[in-house]
Amino acid sequence: MIFTLPPEPIPRIAGLEELAVGQRFELGSVVLERADIIGFATDFDPQPFHLDDEAAASSMFGQLVASGIHTISAIFGLSVRTGILVGCNLGGSGMTDVKWLRPVRPGDVLSLDWTIVSITPSERRPDRGTVQIRYAVTNQDGQGMLTLVLYHIVARVPA
Amino acid sequence: MIFTLPPEPIPRIAGLEELAVGQRFELGSVVLERADIIGFATDFDPQPFHLDDEAAASSMFGQLVASGIHTISAIFGLSVRTGILVGCNLGGSGMTDVKWLRPVRPGDVLSLDWTIVSITPSERRPDRGTVQIRYAVTNQDGQGMLTLVLYHIVARVPA
Repeated sequence: MIFTLPPEPIPRIAGLEELAVGQRFELGSVVLERADIIGFATDFDPQPFHLDDEAAASSMFGQLVASGIHTISAIFGLSVRTGILVGCNLGGSGMTDVKWLRPVRPGDVLSLDWTIVSITPSERRPDRGTVQIRYAVTNQDGQGMLTLVLYHIVARVPA
Repeated sequence: MIFTLPPEPIPRIAGLEELAVGQRFELGSVVLERADIIGFATDFDPQPFHLDDEAAASSMFGQLVASGIHTISAIFGLSVRTGILVGCNLGGSGMTDVKWLRPVRPGDVLSLDWTIVSITPSERRPDRGTVQIRYAVTNQDGQGMLTLVLYHIVARVPA
């Protein structure tokens, strides 16, 4: 995996109050190489079209492609490496609307973009809230590859 | 990771026609060990509560826990290893309603259960359809750990 952070510095969000609905963040890119794809699939998704060129050639994909779960994992790894929510991201409660739009091939450059969809302070826990973030992934040709919405549990800025 | 398949043989589904809405399948279990959890997190989710005992102790989780993406990956790896859809699973188009209900600790025994939610033959491609499958994961105490719905693209039984 080759992670590339964007040239401009990425803000470090201190807590819920520093986020706003509609905010967008460009978070760099990740490339999955052939060995990465086969390695992940061996552990987590050992289907022929993720493991072997010949088998993949006769599959729906026509060539070796990454496991969809691998693409999610790699994009998530990219977002954590940017440090954008370091210190205030307490965990995740769920994920929805995952769409694998196009298969990911070895060498594709997967760029990640975040949009803040909603911010809901917790009623029970005054120190935190839930932030719904839309992850959008495009390739080197600007084609949509993956979208999903993740529910992050984010701390409020300490008083 | 320790995968354990169920003692009874699991059927090998030949195609869409052999599935029915409401069908349930018990698909065995997987255990994530401490080194697995840290290894996955190092690549894909390098947050302190997935990497380091001391940092995890002061987190929301109070101890080292698996990345939620890791749990999804491992459960998916288990389902592929059962062979239930081998030969007829053409790929996946999406996933929704992922809920991480409880954090996964090293050594938890994660049992997987499938329920067939819907079966939709493709209008454009007469050789396939979409099967919505609900994945439900419980631990050694029967507590719900993870649920999600995955959209599988499944071949029809050849005429």
